[in-house]
Amino acid sequence: MKATKHNPGSGRRDRMLLSLALFTVCLLWAFARTAIGQPLASWSDGPAKKAIVQFVTAVTTEDLPTFVIPSERIAVFDNDGTLWSEQPLYFQFMFVLDRIKAMAPQHPEWNDREPFKSILAGDIEAALAGGEQAIAAMMVATHSGMTTDEFQAQVVAWLATARHPRFNRPYTDLVYRPMLELLNYLRENGFKTFIVSGGGSEFMRPWTQKVYGIPPEQVIGSQGKLGFEMRDGQPALVKLPQIDLIDDKAGKPVAIQKHIGRRPLAAFGNSDGDLEMLQWTTSGPGLRFALLVHHTDSEREWAYDRQSPIGALDKAWDEAKAKGWILVDMRRDWKKVYAFE
Amino acid sequence: MKATKHNPGSGRRDRMLLSLALFTVCLLWAFARTAIGQPLASWSDGPAKKAIVQFVTAVTTEDLPTFVIPSERIAVFDNDGTLWSEQPLYFQFMFVLDRIKAMAPQHPEWNDREPFKSILAGDIEAALAGGEQAIAAMMVATHSGMTTDEFQAQVVAWLATARHPRFNRPYTDLVYRPMLELLNYLRENGFKTFIVSGGGSEFMRPWTQKVYGIPPEQVIGSQGKLGFEMRDGQPALVKLPQIDLIDDKAGKPVAIQKHIGRRPLAAFGNSDGDLEMLQWTTSGPGLRFALLVHHTDSEREWAYDRQSPIGALDKAWDEAKAKGWILVDMRRDWKKVYAFE
Repeated sequence: MKATKHNPGSGRRDRMLLSLALFTVCLLWAFARTAIGQPLASWSDGPAKKAIVQFVTAVTTEDLPTFVIPSERIAVFDNDGTLWSEQPLYFQFMFVLDRIKAMAPQHPEWNDREPFKSILAGDIEAALAGGEQAIAAMMVATHSGMTTDEFQAQVVAWLATARHPRFNRPYTDLVYRPMLELLNYLRENGFKTFIVSGGGSEFMRPWTQKVYGIPPEQVIGSQGKLGFEMRDGQPALVKLPQIDLIDDKAGKPVAIQKHIGRRPLAAFGNSDGDLEMLQWTTSGPGLRFALLVHHTDSEREWAYDRQSPIGALDKAWDEAKAKGWILVDMRRDWKKVYAFE
Repeated sequence: MKATKHNPGSGRRDRMLLSLALFTVCLLWAFARTAIGQPLASWSDGPAKKAIVQFVTAVTTEDLPTFVIPSERIAVFDNDGTLWSEQPLYFQFMFVLDRIKAMAPQHPEWNDREPFKSILAGDIEAALAGGEQAIAAMMVATHSGMTTDEFQAQVVAWLATARHPRFNRPYTDLVYRPMLELLNYLRENGFKTFIVSGGGSEFMRPWTQKVYGIPPEQVIGSQGKLGFEMRDGQPALVKLPQIDLIDDKAGKPVAIQKHIGRRPLAAFGNSDGDLEMLQWTTSGPGLRFALLVHHTDSEREWAYDRQSPIGALDKAWDEAKAKGWILVDMRRDWKKVYAFE
């Protein structure tokens, strides 16, 4: 469009163009405000969201006494029940059951041996009746003997085909959208985000970068012993049938120190297994942050706490109330639970 | 300076200004070339430097088949003898001796007990005659019983006052300038740099950020067991007198997998203790890089290899020659060893 200087309609046209330009600017401003000013879009405007934003503002605003340099902004997240669901059974346990079924043709002896016999007959309850010994046998069968490369390939293959029994979706679809937004929000504010989970680190590392944006070296989990040996003339790391570290309860602060080497600034969990991690995190000097996800939504997710055999929230709930840690009421505080809703 | 259009001298002045401008541009270009094009300034223009630059170019040039995405650019460095000196004794061992002397007034029983008696009498050789048992007793006395916070404070206080016996300088002055340049060069090219050392991780982490630009969570070392307990009503992590992991020889690839969870792209060491780390690193697919520092400079540093009681380079040297790993001849390849020279 060419505007000539002495065209009599040019004044109106200029005003129109100006209005259009102003409108565009306003639109861009509103868009930017939504994108930048509303970083936790799936969180309701309640006390939990407010506490998160207040904490992040306090430690990232340079002229406040609560300011913390970026390198000290370490945030640790439990995984099962905090970043993704853990019902009806821990997803790693579903992997164990599927692996036992897949491996069964090579193990005819399992047809007469518990807990394998019951698992192959589809009776999980009977298999679990064997208690810790039964679970140890399942773990040894599915989590040792192979190289770390082979195990990671098994995890990737399983995630690509396995479906959650309730939602008929890949297990990685059952990550909480509000927590993904929280991870992003913290990283945008200079935090380094870590997973500190009772789950196996070798089980989580193949997919945490893609799903959570957390690289393998920032994933801390339970670990078995590893053996370095030559296989077919090549060095290999072989998963051995001994436990090295159970990254749960008091094991969490221990694992944090061994791996990260400094106290986190913020810790996020959902159960009594996270209590010591939250105690350790909040015992450091200066402003600290602790948050527990309370599973209160039987419709969109699950509702369970004190009495649950998985992810019991009992002692940690009492301590959260006593110490003013943030409790997320999933039903009230999360507009959305999963991205696919 | 004002130039008027019809001044008869302005032609010559313009040519002079143009020459000055061109000269300035050339100067800036030369300066930029030195700063950007010569990132390993303390390295002689020999085969080692050439191999490093070739490798980094190969994995960072997008249209080459050897290109590697930044997140996979993991580089691991041994510490003692690779990033700083390790003579006449590992520096952490000098810390142990100094701590025993400092703690002696609280331990009158040490006057009659080996290896403490000999250490307090200044006879290190006699103390070490007790072999592994004597060393274990020294480690337990100086590396357990305190909280992790207390231990880190002891390390920081020691580094501030202790002086290396040969150079009469802080131990952290004995880091190799060419290796600092190499760390920077790799990081500028998208690498994440890790330390993987037989030294204690709690001993290294208080100073590696400042000295090497490597944060605590990227320092992997030998570790003792930790206990989580309440001290004066506050949670504390206490160093226990049991070894958890010796991060040496086959322990190095194991520690790398436990901590980083993926095979490094490049590994740097100086002794047989690094052999398995280099084997593991170079066994991965695609282009890999392995380098050993050979201590050949008795004047500026030390000269030792196959027969040395500290940092022996024997089997790893043979394997380096057989496999084409890069051998740094310190005397030939490093223009400077320490920054203070």
